Amino acid sequence: MVKTAEEIARLLDGQLVGDGSVEISGVAGITEAKQGEITFLASPKYKPLLKTTTASAVIVTEDEKFPGKTLIRLEDPRLAFAKVMRLFYSYHPQVPGGVHPSAVIGQKVNLGQGVSIGACVCIEDQVVLGDEVIIFPGVFIGRGSRIGNGSVVNANVTIGEETFIGNQVIVHSGTVIGSDGFGYAKEGDQHLKIPQRGTVIVENDVEIGANVTIDRGTLGATRIGKGTKIDNLVQIAHNVIIGPNSLVVAQVGISGSTEIGSGVILAGQVGVAGHIKIGDGSVIGAKSGVSKSVAPHSVLFGYPARAITKTKRIEACLSRLPDMFKKVRDLEKKLKAPEKEGDNDRSSENH
Amino acid sequence: MVKTAEEIARLLDGQLVGDGSVEISGVAGITEAKQGEITFLASPKYKPLLKTTTASAVIVTEDEKFPGKTLIRLEDPRLAFAKVMRLFYSYHPQVPGGVHPSAVIGQKVNLGQGVSIGACVCIEDQVVLGDEVIIFPGVFIGRGSRIGNGSVVNANVTIGEETFIGNQVIVHSGTVIGSDGFGYAKEGDQHLKIPQRGTVIVENDVEIGANVTIDRGTLGATRIGKGTKIDNLVQIAHNVIIGPNSLVVAQVGISGSTEIGSGVILAGQVGVAGHIKIGDGSVIGAKSGVSKSVAPHSVLFGYPARAITKTKRIEACLSRLPDMFKKVRDLEKKLKAPEKEGDNDRSSENH
Amino acid sequence: MVKTAEEIARLLDGQLVGDGSVEISGVAGITEAKQGEITFLASPKYKPLLKTTTASAVIVTEDEKFPGKTLIRLEDPRLAFAKVMRLFYSYHPQVPGGVHPSAVIGQKVNLGQGVSIGACVCIEDQVVLGDEVIIFPGVFIGRGSRIGNGSVVNANVTIGEETFIGNQVIVHSGTVIGSDGFGYAKEGDQHLKIPQRGTVIVENDVEIGANVTIDRGTLGATRIGKGTKIDNLVQIAHNVIIGPNSLVVAQVGISGSTEIGSGVILAGQVGVAGHIKIGDGSVIGAKSGVSKSVAPHSVLFGYPARAITKTKRIEACLSRLPDMFKKVRDLEKKLKAPEKEGDNDRSSENH
Repeated sequence: MVKTAEEIARLLDGQLVGDGSVEISGVAGITEAKQGEITFLASPKYKPLLKTTTASAVIVTEDEKFPGKTLIRLEDPRLAFAKVMRLFYSYHPQVPGGVHPSAVIGQKVNLGQGVSIGACVCIEDQVVLGDEVIIFPGVFIGRGSRIGNGSVVNANVTIGEETFIGNQVIVHSGTVIGSDGFGYAKEGDQHLKIPQRGTVIVENDVEIGANVTIDRGTLGATRIGKGTKIDNLVQIAHNVIIGPNSLVVAQVGISGSTEIGSGVILAGQVGVAGHIKIGDGSVIGAKSGVSKSVAPHSVLFGYPARAITKTKRIEACLSRLPDMFKKVRDLEKKLKAPEKEGDNDRSSENH
Repeated sequence: MVKTAEEIARLLDGQLVGDGSVEISGVAGITEAKQGEITFLASPKYKPLLKTTTASAVIVTEDEKFPGKTLIRLEDPRLAFAKVMRLFYSYHPQVPGGVHPSAVIGQKVNLGQGVSIGACVCIEDQVVLGDEVIIFPGVFIGRGSRIGNGSVVNANVTIGEETFIGNQVIVHSGTVIGSDGFGYAKEGDQHLKIPQRGTVIVENDVEIGANVTIDRGTLGATRIGKGTKIDNLVQIAHNVIIGPNSLVVAQVGISGSTEIGSGVILAGQVGVAGHIKIGDGSVIGAKSGVSKSVAPHSVLFGYPARAITKTKRIEACLSRLPDMFKKVRDLEKKLKAPEKEGDNDRSSENH
Repeated sequence: MVKTAEEIARLLDGQLVGDGSVEISGVAGITEAKQGEITFLASPKYKPLLKTTTASAVIVTEDEKFPGKTLIRLEDPRLAFAKVMRLFYSYHPQVPGGVHPSAVIGQKVNLGQGVSIGACVCIEDQVVLGDEVIIFPGVFIGRGSRIGNGSVVNANVTIGEETFIGNQVIVHSGTVIGSDGFGYAKEGDQHLKIPQRGTVIVENDVEIGANVTIDRGTLGATRIGKGTKIDNLVQIAHNVIIGPNSLVVAQVGISGSTEIGSGVILAGQVGVAGHIKIGDGSVIGAKSGVSKSVAPHSVLFGYPARAITKTKRIEACLSRLPDMFKKVRDLEKKLKAPEKEGDNDRSSENH
């Protein structure tokens, strides 16, 4: 596809500066972009690269200037970059349609129109796949599960039985949805397994990264809300509920029966205890450990997680803690010093 | 299956209160349970739900009262819940018996009675599977490995060569058992791989979660003790030894050659250094980092892990640390103040 | 293979002490080694085991003595152990050659000499495999990817499209290379997916553990440098660059666009923020969180990561923090006590 810079500016609702007739046929990073490609200025610190880039057009913030370059000025260059990437590149994989002859399809399986099922896929009985669903090679889908229209399941994913995946969901490779929750009751020294009879519900427009694990509910459902995005290697325990449009970054772990609100951000490697609530719009900084419920719109950080302003103040103190210990020792000496003169005996007893 | 509340009370060795003739055919959560279902009161904080639940019977603690409801009173409602779940629901998957025609079975493979081997499974030479073993689709089992009676290996699991899995073991999807340990020797700038020639031994009644990794020993075995339960995304390095009946929660990492005792609990995201011992019955709180050996029955928490009482005291201090810094500054001022009057010069030098 | 102790000593460039004619046919741990096997003293703390070992020869440090035992004295016993392991054991798996009939091979696929492709492997169009490449069962390789000579890809690995793997690379089971980066732009409440169009480049001699995830670049490449070794369950985000000969231990997470230098060690469960640089030769202690760029040859530890000497001093202070709080309270009392006598009013105002 080829578009002029002017056409792109109009599509992005941006202000064109410079030659609008240059033709664009792709997107590239600012250092790699060649003639015929558009790029974007990700951060003001990369501004010097405007001089050297050979891109035919650059998406910039509203106040940016660079005479001689074709610029598209916008309020939110990152969003515009996303849109221009989506304009030139589909994120929908190219696959051969139909069912590969090596796939093993159970009984009473209901396949929508235009589905694509890869090699060595195994689909158990009574599974329902919506229209235009793409299942990559090596995927297993257990009995009675459903996957909605337009969803993509990448290679070697495992979806357990009676698991419900919505429309336009993307599941990356190696992920396991619907494994048993970690539920035992102690009987003497031993741990008696509690059969895990619930399900997993993944709502529309969710994306789930690679090698993620999402356990089914013990009873009832583990639920991932509409539009929520989950990064790689995340653990989501039984009966966790995540609201819509949240972001769960790589290697986060969420313990059983916890509720995460809508629009929440859990940064990388965060751990969240079980049976608590994280309020809507909260942001939890990387590697934090959250053990208590969190009010909506909280911004927490640390292990244990505290209000980020508090954690930052404590950290500033920690850096000076050895000095502080010295100060207190000095104060103790000063306070003893006058005593020494008048009361040598008591002072020496203290040593 | 249908049982009366009275029959269930008798099986659980609990005290029946109310109408024992109500018929029970399933188990559900206290908010979802319908007539004909039994539920349990997981925690006193859910007590108000007793009023609204439509469950036909509720498992409660010994002192619980609620006129008009059929109650089964017990010392340990969680254990009773586990037992009643096991009464109504098998945790054994329903699978077609026999070997799927698409499975690839090597030479000198020994299959027990009643084994079930799914589609696209690959079993290398000289593997031995016990009776009633279930292997889900997409599993790989390497040369010479053995799996004991009644064990279940879920989809897309990889079991390396010469790996030994006991009886009644459950392995969840995507897990890798018997990968190479992370062993290198430094030669100049480079890392020379040490061939990993040991094995993994998983004893009876172990359950291993999804996307877990258990490396084989460099020489000798990595060993998971009888009845130990391992959650999702756990890393167990080469030559780790875990005793019986321990719990290893999600995303824990245990470094090489470390020994974990029996009945130990490692909570979520804990990290344990290599070549140390965690004594029997110890409990390590979530996200803790343990770098030294730990005496039996220790209860540790924090990074670095300390006795939990100590960590809690330090944390309480940390919350007040900025205030404390202020106090020390005030003390310094107070001590300088009298000096000022008599010795203004020295005081100003200090600034 | 059988070698005499003398031959092994010569190959290792070590000093033989004792009977050099003993024949060695294998390697074992010091407690398990039998006659005919060689072992090594991993640490001085295991020295008492020299008395009881039945090994025919022991690799030791240069100053070690033990009359009656055949010893090979060396500067670096660990390196010698690696070499002797490589002498007796190949780390190259034994596999049947050729392409298994159940493998599904796309069009215009280029297979080198002596490749081995296991059961239920799926290789898409235009993939190129070098000579002697081994692909275990259940692997998926996406369109246009290349794997260099002598590389080994273990079972159930997923390699996305347009991904480039060098020579002599080892990829362990369940790992995903080339999944989509976690890239979205916010549009109102929603997260708009940015198509991930870059690639992954894994250079020669890299080893990648089990259930690792390596995302492709958004644009441009995610790159793992020559000779770098990555442990299990590691997350490497889009556009991360890792230099040569680094070690990335289990469960580490590296955020997008970060650069890790050469010869760096990231210990277990470390988290590294995005868009920063870790200088060559740096060592980051286990479970540390790094949020700012790090100068070459830094040794950091903690959350947040600081110079390890500083963190250790802070930790020593923390252990004494409750005592310190008491000291400050005592100091405050002491300073108030004399005031009380002369100035009771002001003192009470302070409460």
